[in-house]
Amino acid sequence: MLEKIDHIGIAVRSVEASSVLYRDVLGLAYEGTEVVESQGVKVAFFRLGEAKIELLEPLHEESPIARFLEKKGEGIHHIALGCDDIEAWRARMEEAGVRLLSEEPIDGAHGKLITFMHPADTGRVLLELTQRRQQP
Amino acid sequence: MLEKIDHIGIAVRSVEASSVLYRDVLGLAYEGTEVVESQGVKVAFFRLGEAKIELLEPLHEESPIARFLEKKGEGIHHIALGCDDIEAWRARMEEAGVRLLSEEPIDGAHGKLITFMHPADTGRVLLELTQRRQQP
Repeated sequence: MLEKIDHIGIAVRSVEASSVLYRDVLGLAYEGTEVVESQGVKVAFFRLGEAKIELLEPLHEESPIARFLEKKGEGIHHIALGCDDIEAWRARMEEAGVRLLSEEPIDGAHGKLITFMHPADTGRVLLELTQRRQQP
Repeated sequence: MLEKIDHIGIAVRSVEASSVLYRDVLGLAYEGTEVVESQGVKVAFFRLGEAKIELLEPLHEESPIARFLEKKGEGIHHIALGCDDIEAWRARMEEAGVRLLSEEPIDGAHGKLITFMHPADTGRVLLELTQRRQQP
């Protein structure tokens, strides 16, 4: 079973500028900023119930978020679904004909393992599977 | 305080066709279908943790969802933030310079009171405030 919406990713030009809305106006608890090299982004998290809002700012022009901003401007980028077994979910999605954007799970923020699904196979919604990395 | 992500609204051409992904492939519990006259849509809900995925299909061409589909195609439409006092949140948003799309809270699905914020004031993210209607 999928556990929850882990986070909603929002593409922004500036994490600092957009934090005003989520932290100061909406009053969400800020949970830190992190660099995710695999996606070429700086991300900031804000807690909202069991989920988080993730603001994504590109670090360079090769980042998928830089291309998203150029094409569509700021806005909602993806929905991350929390699961407890990403390998099982990857297999299930492929069996259902949903293509995955990486051959293996990749490193996300907070040391999680993540996989994006191909939005052409999910009604143009970019869905991410995310699993907490097992403690050694 | 905002309580949680109440739901994520996704614009689709057909609730029936898109239900295959959310119900059969992702395995989310189907929570029913409803017509929301104020938005000119048929909506279906699928439970995911404390939140829901809301699929929105336009009932006619005047629906905001019909215009969204025409302009952008299928995809994520809005994020609904659950609150316990929508009037207080409306006042707070207006004080912060965020315009609201209705002069009063309007009727949403499940008998809730809702208000949309102007996306030009929220980084191109369409945010909805939603409050359970008080029992009489």
